[in-house]
Amino acid sequence: MNEYLEELGKNAKKAARLLNNLSQEEKNEGLLSVADQLISQTPYLLEENQIDVQKAIENGVKDSLVDRLRLTPERIGAMAEGLRQIAALEDPIGEILSMKTRPNGLQIGQMRVPLGVIGIIYESRPNVTADAFGLCFKTGNAVILRGGSDAIHSNIAVKNVIQDGLEDAALPKTAIALLEDTSRETAAEMMKCDEYIDVLIPRGGAGLIRSVMENSTIPVIETGTGNCHIYVDESADLDMAVRIIENAKTQRMGVCNACESLVIHRSVADKIIPMIADTLGKKKVEIRADEDSRVIAPQLTPASKEDWGTEYLDAIISMKVVDSIEEAIEHINQYNTGHSEAIITSNYKNALRFQREIDAAAVYVNASTRFTDGFEFGFGAEIGISTQKLHARGPMGLLALTTTKYVIFGDGQIRE
Amino acid sequence: MNEYLEELGKNAKKAARLLNNLSQEEKNEGLLSVADQLISQTPYLLEENQIDVQKAIENGVKDSLVDRLRLTPERIGAMAEGLRQIAALEDPIGEILSMKTRPNGLQIGQMRVPLGVIGIIYESRPNVTADAFGLCFKTGNAVILRGGSDAIHSNIAVKNVIQDGLEDAALPKTAIALLEDTSRETAAEMMKCDEYIDVLIPRGGAGLIRSVMENSTIPVIETGTGNCHIYVDESADLDMAVRIIENAKTQRMGVCNACESLVIHRSVADKIIPMIADTLGKKKVEIRADEDSRVIAPQLTPASKEDWGTEYLDAIISMKVVDSIEEAIEHINQYNTGHSEAIITSNYKNALRFQREIDAAAVYVNASTRFTDGFEFGFGAEIGISTQKLHARGPMGLLALTTTKYVIFGDGQIRE
Repeated sequence: MNEYLEELGKNAKKAARLLNNLSQEEKNEGLLSVADQLISQTPYLLEENQIDVQKAIENGVKDSLVDRLRLTPERIGAMAEGLRQIAALEDPIGEILSMKTRPNGLQIGQMRVPLGVIGIIYESRPNVTADAFGLCFKTGNAVILRGGSDAIHSNIAVKNVIQDGLEDAALPKTAIALLEDTSRETAAEMMKCDEYIDVLIPRGGAGLIRSVMENSTIPVIETGTGNCHIYVDESADLDMAVRIIENAKTQRMGVCNACESLVIHRSVADKIIPMIADTLGKKKVEIRADEDSRVIAPQLTPASKEDWGTEYLDAIISMKVVDSIEEAIEHINQYNTGHSEAIITSNYKNALRFQREIDAAAVYVNASTRFTDGFEFGFGAEIGISTQKLHARGPMGLLALTTTKYVIFGDGQIRE
Repeated sequence: MNEYLEELGKNAKKAARLLNNLSQEEKNEGLLSVADQLISQTPYLLEENQIDVQKAIENGVKDSLVDRLRLTPERIGAMAEGLRQIAALEDPIGEILSMKTRPNGLQIGQMRVPLGVIGIIYESRPNVTADAFGLCFKTGNAVILRGGSDAIHSNIAVKNVIQDGLEDAALPKTAIALLEDTSRETAAEMMKCDEYIDVLIPRGGAGLIRSVMENSTIPVIETGTGNCHIYVDESADLDMAVRIIENAKTQRMGVCNACESLVIHRSVADKIIPMIADTLGKKKVEIRADEDSRVIAPQLTPASKEDWGTEYLDAIISMKVVDSIEEAIEHINQYNTGHSEAIITSNYKNALRFQREIDAAAVYVNASTRFTDGFEFGFGAEIGISTQKLHARGPMGLLALTTTKYVIFGDGQIRE
């Protein structure tokens, strides 16, 4: 293995043992100390960030991407505030779950403990550096970060400031490491460091996630794409349906829990399709519709087969008419990405059936898919939204960064 | 992809949707019907098994391995009884965990659901075929099995009988599939079927497990090896320590939760090392000891550095003297495989410290490591013992074959 990575890995593993033994108070003091340093070192952070921003502008990077890269005093303030909020959350580490006494007197429970060393591979936003550190540190995990090369000066600066904050609080600065070598080769080697890294979390676009899934020998938590559907059932309150569709599509377009596809029961199609076309039309959303929908609203764009499987992240939505809830469930289970799906219905049986049969991380009755989010779910934090089934599914808060171990209290028991 | 695998995968995925909708009663009836078929088709099973056994004998396979392969009326009876026991267990599917109401009125809970399609790659024992099917079916999962080529006639026969039992109960026989092509190439392709298989569980030796970990693009649950330690602390009840060591080493030698290494506090070494040497000597266990131990008991074999990291699965154990609990914890965390570790102590603080700081699936105070087992933990079933940290850690019962999805009950909520 690459010596540089081996060194980082060994130090992180040592740090993880130290972090596992910290009290809740020590961890919270560390987070607050880092928050203070972010504020007091704002000029340094802005200066280093300016190097990345300047380079991006020179390279002709799109304005929206330059904006994601840019730090401002307000954004640095928000990073510090994020760490203070994490400090205020309940610490899940050390809780012992479902302790039971066996017939032979052994007491067996599950203690919640850190995962150990977490690797995070992400793209260009430098605020992820502080955010990921905060969630990992709160749960007693060491973290090895690999950000994009376009944000490298900013990321190194944020990492330095975090380490200053930790040293101020007499805590190990090896709790955070950042790959200063941002080559693809080193990223690929990082994905094979299963000796030192316990779990790898990619945060970014579909290409990054697929590459990590295919190359990593470390267990991966997949944070995925969202081809989210809303199904309007026969018995739906149509006004409610339109309100929810408008919200789920247009409240924020470029996010994974935005609605990308509508499935409409034939018996309400006549009434609701014109209402939807009108409402989304005012918001400049293009509707790509199947033939049955276009009989009702011929002005809509014809959908092609590719539309059913597409996550637009844009002002476009697909629409399909179905004959039954069975057909709706089958269609959604075929094309969804396991993220968030909703039914709008007044029928008790259909509501429960949809929740039982749809295969996704979050299944809604009569609410917007936009609620799939760690803060909206009340976790007080979010490391991403898992679309896989192992370990964590749906919005991931602090608990997703922990594991358990069995602790067994005996008084001399041996096995017969 | 291989057409044969694609066909199996598609059918399994369809079956998984059907199984997800079965009631507890239907699933239990299926398990009992399969148990009845195993008994009534015993002559057929014995006949097919005889082909595998004959071939193994002709190929000069070791007696102990031929014995693992052999079915008898008693063993078939035990397979059927295993399925009846699984039928009697509580069904975890459909339970809704920690339902909470958010300030906006949304009710959010986590529903326990099947994983979907489970792939199991295992070695030669044909009883695993029935056992794995039973656990997967009870939890509403379809299963694709890939057993060893040396047991292929037995495995196909068991699979056929299971399918007869399912058909008798009017249940989908695609709930179980078995790869009849046992080539390595097809096994390697199966590990890439992430489109159809939700999780892959290897059951077998270290070589099989490593190969699956390295080649699979499907999330893997690692069932691992056990280099288990017992640490005898300064304040240990020495008679209890010797009883537990004898049990953990000799009650059954070839299993992953057997003790492979002893760590002795220097202040009790003089007294306990002769006691251990005497007790294990009577059981013909070879002790490979460090220099400090051999000053006390010069008749012991000198340990080499490789001994600290070796899982013997045999009548051998390693032994090391340490100066403190810190040194014991550091040694164990360096060489253990994350399985089961024990401390023998009367000291309250040291007991809690060992449990907190040792990084393993099961951490014992004053009990034998041999208890790490789904049945001993009270799960009523076991699919293996996980030594990884994601999803499931320690003995895995039915819950390890489930995931959760968020179910959200709204009445028109939209995100502001």
